[in-house]
Amino acid sequence: MKIGILGATGYTGHELIRILRGHSEAEIVYLGSSGSAGQKIADIYPGLNEIVDNNLESDQEVPEEIEVLFCALPHGITAGRAEKYLDRQIKVIDLGADFRLKDKNIYEAWYKTSHASPHLLAEAVYGIPELNRAEIAGKRLIANPGCYPTATQLALVPLLKDKLLKSDSIIVDAKSGVSGAGRGTNLGVHFSEVNENFKAYGVATHRHTPEIEQELSKAAGEDILINFTPHLVPMTRGILTTIYASAAEGVEEGDLLQSWQTVYADEQFVHQMPGGEWPQTKYAYGSNHVFMQLKLDKRTGRVILVAALDNLVKGASGQAVQNMNILFGLPEETGLKTNGMWP
Amino acid sequence: MKIGILGATGYTGHELIRILRGHSEAEIVYLGSSGSAGQKIADIYPGLNEIVDNNLESDQEVPEEIEVLFCALPHGITAGRAEKYLDRQIKVIDLGADFRLKDKNIYEAWYKTSHASPHLLAEAVYGIPELNRAEIAGKRLIANPGCYPTATQLALVPLLKDKLLKSDSIIVDAKSGVSGAGRGTNLGVHFSEVNENFKAYGVATHRHTPEIEQELSKAAGEDILINFTPHLVPMTRGILTTIYASAAEGVEEGDLLQSWQTVYADEQFVHQMPGGEWPQTKYAYGSNHVFMQLKLDKRTGRVILVAALDNLVKGASGQAVQNMNILFGLPEETGLKTNGMWP
Amino acid sequence: MKIGILGATGYTGHELIRILRGHSEAEIVYLGSSGSAGQKIADIYPGLNEIVDNNLESDQEVPEEIEVLFCALPHGITAGRAEKYLDRQIKVIDLGADFRLKDKNIYEAWYKTSHASPHLLAEAVYGIPELNRAEIAGKRLIANPGCYPTATQLALVPLLKDKLLKSDSIIVDAKSGVSGAGRGTNLGVHFSEVNENFKAYGVATHRHTPEIEQELSKAAGEDILINFTPHLVPMTRGILTTIYASAAEGVEEGDLLQSWQTVYADEQFVHQMPGGEWPQTKYAYGSNHVFMQLKLDKRTGRVILVAALDNLVKGASGQAVQNMNILFGLPEETGLKTNGMWP
Amino acid sequence: MKIGILGATGYTGHELIRILRGHSEAEIVYLGSSGSAGQKIADIYPGLNEIVDNNLESDQEVPEEIEVLFCALPHGITAGRAEKYLDRQIKVIDLGADFRLKDKNIYEAWYKTSHASPHLLAEAVYGIPELNRAEIAGKRLIANPGCYPTATQLALVPLLKDKLLKSDSIIVDAKSGVSGAGRGTNLGVHFSEVNENFKAYGVATHRHTPEIEQELSKAAGEDILINFTPHLVPMTRGILTTIYASAAEGVEEGDLLQSWQTVYADEQFVHQMPGGEWPQTKYAYGSNHVFMQLKLDKRTGRVILVAALDNLVKGASGQAVQNMNILFGLPEETGLKTNGMWP
Repeated sequence: MKIGILGATGYTGHELIRILRGHSEAEIVYLGSSGSAGQKIADIYPGLNEIVDNNLESDQEVPEEIEVLFCALPHGITAGRAEKYLDRQIKVIDLGADFRLKDKNIYEAWYKTSHASPHLLAEAVYGIPELNRAEIAGKRLIANPGCYPTATQLALVPLLKDKLLKSDSIIVDAKSGVSGAGRGTNLGVHFSEVNENFKAYGVATHRHTPEIEQELSKAAGEDILINFTPHLVPMTRGILTTIYASAAEGVEEGDLLQSWQTVYADEQFVHQMPGGEWPQTKYAYGSNHVFMQLKLDKRTGRVILVAALDNLVKGASGQAVQNMNILFGLPEETGLKTNGMWP
Repeated sequence: MKIGILGATGYTGHELIRILRGHSEAEIVYLGSSGSAGQKIADIYPGLNEIVDNNLESDQEVPEEIEVLFCALPHGITAGRAEKYLDRQIKVIDLGADFRLKDKNIYEAWYKTSHASPHLLAEAVYGIPELNRAEIAGKRLIANPGCYPTATQLALVPLLKDKLLKSDSIIVDAKSGVSGAGRGTNLGVHFSEVNENFKAYGVATHRHTPEIEQELSKAAGEDILINFTPHLVPMTRGILTTIYASAAEGVEEGDLLQSWQTVYADEQFVHQMPGGEWPQTKYAYGSNHVFMQLKLDKRTGRVILVAALDNLVKGASGQAVQNMNILFGLPEETGLKTNGMWP
Repeated sequence: MKIGILGATGYTGHELIRILRGHSEAEIVYLGSSGSAGQKIADIYPGLNEIVDNNLESDQEVPEEIEVLFCALPHGITAGRAEKYLDRQIKVIDLGADFRLKDKNIYEAWYKTSHASPHLLAEAVYGIPELNRAEIAGKRLIANPGCYPTATQLALVPLLKDKLLKSDSIIVDAKSGVSGAGRGTNLGVHFSEVNENFKAYGVATHRHTPEIEQELSKAAGEDILINFTPHLVPMTRGILTTIYASAAEGVEEGDLLQSWQTVYADEQFVHQMPGGEWPQTKYAYGSNHVFMQLKLDKRTGRVILVAALDNLVKGASGQAVQNMNILFGLPEETGLKTNGMWP
Repeated sequence: MKIGILGATGYTGHELIRILRGHSEAEIVYLGSSGSAGQKIADIYPGLNEIVDNNLESDQEVPEEIEVLFCALPHGITAGRAEKYLDRQIKVIDLGADFRLKDKNIYEAWYKTSHASPHLLAEAVYGIPELNRAEIAGKRLIANPGCYPTATQLALVPLLKDKLLKSDSIIVDAKSGVSGAGRGTNLGVHFSEVNENFKAYGVATHRHTPEIEQELSKAAGEDILINFTPHLVPMTRGILTTIYASAAEGVEEGDLLQSWQTVYADEQFVHQMPGGEWPQTKYAYGSNHVFMQLKLDKRTGRVILVAALDNLVKGASGQAVQNMNILFGLPEETGLKTNGMWP
């Protein structure tokens, strides 16, 4: 496969490169950049010198030969360009937010910008393979989910489909490493202000909220509103989401575990921890794996669910490659077989 | 005041020493240790060499002259000794868990040990000055609260007293730095396994749960059960607690803020953040201050409350000194005036 | 004392505020800022809300009442303003580099700017109290040393004065936390690029080199050139410097230790570690203390010396306060009595 | 290839598993453990659940089919067992120290234990492929070098062979992440005591000193003594070594760079940074790459050399796999193609 990456100089771009170098069927033939065209990718990331020698080219000139294009761009940009690529028979995998929300109005309300190609929203497939693999195959436009939504949906969707939770009771308390904020520089990612520090941010206003609600509502078959509170952890990689929901009447812990088991037993990237063990973000470090656990607290009737993953892999570039593998009929784990680094 | 510390070699012991060296009325005359008697405290903490030259003495021989004794011991030990000290007119401030729970049975159920002096439980005062200052003054046995409970109660107690929250809706998602686990060595505090990692622990089983429930129930005037999930943050100091609760009927955000304001407006250690600002643990670093914020999410009807403090100061040794100041009629801020270190 | 701080919004400004709040004789009456005048300091550092309520004022209008002015400004600025303050009988303590180098040409070569008041260079006193206390007293213009130079000189100056080292053999391999780079934002302090990373920087070009050489040369009575290599440690605070030098003929380890002992035995902030113990930066965390150790490796004839301190305290603001205390005839430890935080 | 690992539960064991899972020709058929036999590797590392399902077996019973055995054991153990494996035609790659030192007496002096099979020392090949590839091929017993020695030798050996440095002038100031200390628990790896801290350790006594000296002496053709000072960096992975040496008479910086170039130009794992760029440990994160740079400081006549690598990959398990590839005639990069993770 001839692969192109738009927005190659960001963290998800670098991670795509790292993953795809270990992918037996992939060849990166184009790295597009708006600000660094004319340089080498190794000028931006000196650790790639002598290892990855691709040049950065204008992000306006996607070469003819490209078969699949990863768009790792700020929101709003891919929406304006996607049709052009689709018309050329290029498969488009958007790591940004432009095609995740099905309702143009919700997109515009949360992202404060108009949507340049709302007619493509219906066609775009929201790409979490473990939850909608069948829909992905054969498509040409994939909305690759955000990091928080992936962890949250993997934990909740089976339980909501099985009506095991009270749908108005869901609270998502999420924690992310700093790389989720990207490579831009500001006080919020200044080492001296993040290290030895912990905080909540975007309380009740984070843009992943409607994306999660849309997919949970679809699973539940009814409108769901959640509380979603992200926090910044003084670490580089990793997302852990702690979810609280009231169990539906008569539901036992075994029912909940069985629901997960039914969906994930054969999945190679999604793992229910053994009894008594709880996920740690580091289990997933540098890998496409997700680790989950749950417990029903009988005292309160609430379920506590935890899911952990690497925000740059299963939460971004790894899942994008997994989607690509499905689009091209390859074994899903191609290029994604590594387990997490420890320590 | 002639001061003694039992369990001086632990982290809260070291922190008591650091704070009390800046306390104009305090003189540390005794450092008791079960395992290191005969050594100097500076042998245990080499950074104290030439600065703090106290010897460590047997923790069985509290000298006559002691007026106040800080007990920083594993649970179960202080319960067996407290009466002896009280009989000698020593004020006892217990940084451990032995006198926090009023119900002996609950203590024994959660701590898996019998209680050696249940007759003292009624007398012991639970010491969060901002919430029960009047009860502390003049007493002789203080149960110094845990780090998680302090943050949680400061956020919730005023609102529960004012009936602003639905009492069956409370979820406490808490995050702590590693120093809360003490100085013992095990894989759970191994740098290589904690750094660049984040996890939940003690899910639905943490011992601070009944302590929080007891005090919240007292404030609400009804039995309250909560969900409490602690998490381990890859940092040394700091606790942040994110709390979710449904607002009572008709309650507006302004009511909630006013409730805090009424209780804390004149407090020098408890601070409601300005509008739009959210607490960060680092604001409190090395200080006795607490930072809080809340928001009513009208979409879900839930309040999100956040409180942050330094687990070793307001969450342990600083609050203990604050309690001591009250016991001895000193200005409460004596020895505690520093603001947080930044960065 | 009525105190003013120019450049109050930087890290050394914040640290001066923190230290001076615990100083019995100090009153901060003026915080000057070029970029944030009109705001409160607590707008810049939200953790100061309700705790420090000073306003930020124009840095051009130092009030009449000021007796001592701390200048925490980028290099080049204080040089242009110092005379004005001195004329008003204000004591000036410059935390920047403008008055550290005695030779205007060396300053201009390394700092790439002309010096606005070279006539003041002779008068300015280089302020490391343990090495030149007598010169500081009674003066009006103090050049507060840099963080690396303080650690390096405290280790080397006594040995060079006593002719115990070969003067052409000195290598200084230094390591600093990130706060030494200040609060400006760039990729070099981006959490995701600094965390879990270690690097050298400014190899053979760092501006602290001539400052160290000047003072070592003065101590040795001959021109000394050194190699100086700073490194960035993924931590916020702390400097540790590892120094290598060949022992002079016939010198034994005891001679070296005795040289330190003679100078530092009565110093309350400088500590030779007990035998076998080596300094850790954390011993000094948040304090004005310095920890040192040395060893003569008989196999190679070289001495290895290590010194550790908190770059924002003894390496900047704490030393500045120590200098102020001397200028005003106060006990040197006023406001600086705390020991290091642990953990 | 049928592969066995002795000491599989340590960090280098886990890293071997991670690397070998991506190795097209490798099959791990045996994981030996002295303390955890009977458990699964995933019981020790819960992040391996459902991903790596190997059992841990007694480390005394290496199966017949094994073709190559990685020994990741504490020093002293492999020496006592190696012959037994060699007699069975198993290739032995020792990640420990037992076969690195050619002189039994030096081994016994530094490791404080007798050597169980000194007759194998001559046969064992010290395995840094870039420096002695030809010697490795076809052998059966490889002494895989330590992490510090690998970085140090890659920087120095070419220059010493080319007589470009004064051989009595070498100082190695090295910095390592915490994972180098292994998985054992003690205060020295306690998160609260390592985080936000930096220190030197093993000053003038570290056991990697004679290993480095042996190989440098061999390269130089004369006995070389060095100063070697390791430091502990508050990070998990990475080693950076800063080396100082006086240039030989008349040597220019270009000569030094040319010496490296001659040896490393075609190496795929060793990279001289572009001019002006200096190595960062993170460039190598999780990869087998090494990054190097040097500068001749004309003021002092000394060369400053820096090399950075991942201590668990090129400094241990990655290099071990690289050696295995050579032993079996495979392309050297098999299983080792990934570039470093960033961030």
